[in-house]
Amino acid sequence: MSENFMYDGGTVSVIGLGHMGTRLAQAFLAGGVSTTVWNRTAAKADALAARGAKRATTVAEAVSSASVVVVCLPEYDTVRALLEPVGPDLAGRVLVNLTSGTPESARLMSRWAADHGAGYLDGAAMSGTRLVGGPDALFVFSGAAEAFAGHRTTLVSLGNAVHLGDDPGLAAVYDTALFGLAWGALAGFYHALSLVGVEDVDPAAFAEVAAGHMPYVTSLMTDHARQVQQDRYPADDGTVQVHAAAMQHLVDASLAGGLRTDVPELMRSLLERAEAAGHGADGMAAVARTIRYGAQRVRD
Amino acid sequence: MSENFMYDGGTVSVIGLGHMGTRLAQAFLAGGVSTTVWNRTAAKADALAARGAKRATTVAEAVSSASVVVVCLPEYDTVRALLEPVGPDLAGRVLVNLTSGTPESARLMSRWAADHGAGYLDGAAMSGTRLVGGPDALFVFSGAAEAFAGHRTTLVSLGNAVHLGDDPGLAAVYDTALFGLAWGALAGFYHALSLVGVEDVDPAAFAEVAAGHMPYVTSLMTDHARQVQQDRYPADDGTVQVHAAAMQHLVDASLAGGLRTDVPELMRSLLERAEAAGHGADGMAAVARTIRYGAQRVRD
Ligand SMILES: NC(=O)c1ccc[n+]([C@@H]2O[C@H](COP(=O)([O-])OP(=O)(O)OC[C@H]3O[C@@H](n4cnc5c(N)ncnc54)[C@H](OP(=O)(O)O)[C@@H]3O)[C@@H](O)[C@H]2O)c1
Ligand SMILES: NC(=O)c1ccc[n+]([C@@H]2O[C@H](COP(=O)([O-])OP(=O)(O)OC[C@H]3O[C@@H](n4cnc5c(N)ncnc54)[C@H](OP(=O)(O)O)[C@@H]3O)[C@@H](O)[C@H]2O)c1
Repeated sequence: MSENFMYDGGTVSVIGLGHMGTRLAQAFLAGGVSTTVWNRTAAKADALAARGAKRATTVAEAVSSASVVVVCLPEYDTVRALLEPVGPDLAGRVLVNLTSGTPESARLMSRWAADHGAGYLDGAAMSGTRLVGGPDALFVFSGAAEAFAGHRTTLVSLGNAVHLGDDPGLAAVYDTALFGLAWGALAGFYHALSLVGVEDVDPAAFAEVAAGHMPYVTSLMTDHARQVQQDRYPADDGTVQVHAAAMQHLVDASLAGGLRTDVPELMRSLLERAEAAGHGADGMAAVARTIRYGAQRVRD
Repeated sequence: MSENFMYDGGTVSVIGLGHMGTRLAQAFLAGGVSTTVWNRTAAKADALAARGAKRATTVAEAVSSASVVVVCLPEYDTVRALLEPVGPDLAGRVLVNLTSGTPESARLMSRWAADHGAGYLDGAAMSGTRLVGGPDALFVFSGAAEAFAGHRTTLVSLGNAVHLGDDPGLAAVYDTALFGLAWGALAGFYHALSLVGVEDVDPAAFAEVAAGHMPYVTSLMTDHARQVQQDRYPADDGTVQVHAAAMQHLVDASLAGGLRTDVPELMRSLLERAEAAGHGADGMAAVARTIRYGAQRVRD
């Protein structure tokens, strides 16, 4: 079995030219990577061909044309159905699967690829379609480190390409977790925007100040991850008790403004739960502990 | 009445040397501002005096020593009690109140200051004590624009000093709103950290990737604020329906990992509410609409 999937031949095929696949192919072309494309509905390749992409007329031809085979389809089942007949053609190449799915389906696909002598990277596009190709577009990959290292120069055409580890399921794990992080921030933001809206604050003006606040919030995440790692919660950023009191104030202000209060009420309940578990005088990050361990395991 | 509170004399007094007041005084000194300090318990001024701060022995002396009088005490009532006897000494100066409080108490304090011929800025320190003096420390101020403009060069010693508008209540409004934003992001982060923890992902490794994701999330805030402003929700970042399905997946993955699910369940309920209000095919930011207007006012 060939091991030359370690080597970055600098050629890529993109299979599936939907919203995301099209942006991936555009980014590879913009990055100077020799790019072959295939899509079920062939017309979707027209604009890419005009930009220099090679068209493959079959999936087998697409697979055979490149050292890196990128697939971006709605579901894993579709990927499997499309690639099953061309498994042998994948030998010596790296399959990069940017289809959303579960960690378990990624691990299965990785084993299938290995059975055909192919390398495998599972990936997740974290930043929607708009930023693809720019430095803020986060793409996470998991699977054999050598497969990533060998094709890093190709994959960085997509954006900020990060390798998470050898377990091919990790990209899907991070995908789900980062989705929750983004939604937490956005739920907080939507509520904040509603609150300042009561005072007729211009949403764009608030967003500008909020954007200036995010580097600090991000620095708290970094610090609090370390606290969770050590399972120690110093109160430098305020105790659970102090935050609970401030959260009650946010609930009250929201009520006074006629807003729905479920967002601050959830946060208050997280803080109350941490207090009930004996973390009142600990730092705010002790809240993380009660999500993972629930009420059963209390601090010793 | 003197109008020279418009002029930046480059001198400041700090009244209240608790955790925050001490950091404020340190930042002014580091910024080269001539700084006088007063604290009820005088010993707390020792270290600052060693760094070049002048000590005032009375509140009256502190007020009379500077063009900008910064107060940072636990409560507005304490501020009022301490300053009431020295009101006349404030004439021609700007009182900068960095004590946390409500918009209404800030507006009252502003009127009190005006009655004594003093300018007034209400302020809020948004980034805890650690970053004070650095560029990422966000300080928001509200009150007469001229008072801010006249003393901007002094106030930027504290960090990223932003003037929000003439209404002195705005700093307190932003303070509460930004607190909710930070907590949304942190609740999402704590949940995400718990989810990857199930797969034994190192918290610090996850935090690094999460930090790389935040610029994108912040860019969504900016875009979505514009959507809220126009009350139009294009689906570029995914529809409410698509996000609701992905959120169900986060709930399921959290359950499978044995985690508390209240964080993703809240987000799912926000999305379901938006769907029920007819926003299923709209962009995700339509969720903001249902916080402000509730269920009564549906889209026309
Ligand atoms: N769009 C985003 O912002 C975004 C962000 C992150 C992740 N993703 C993930 O990226 C993947 C693709 O999403 P997308 O938005 O690009 O989807 P999309 O716009 O709906 O495109 C779907 C693509 O799959 C093809 N396809 C569907 N069924 C097929 C089949 N049975 N055989 C062959 N081709 C088939 C379609 O071909 P036809 O043109 O012939 O229909 C089309 O090229 C999904 O897993 C999604 O979760 C998307
Ligand atoms: N700490 C933070 O991270 C932070 C962040 C944002 C905003 N803030 C806000 O900043 C303000 C001050 O907080 P802090 O953390 O600096 O408080 P702190 O460390 O508890 O200090 C309180 C200060 O107020 C003084 N004081 C209390 N009662 C007094 C009275 N009756 N007469 C005179 N002085 C009195 C204390 O003097 P003694 O030394 O004599 O006791 C001390 O200097 C609060 O409104 C807080 O919400 C704090």
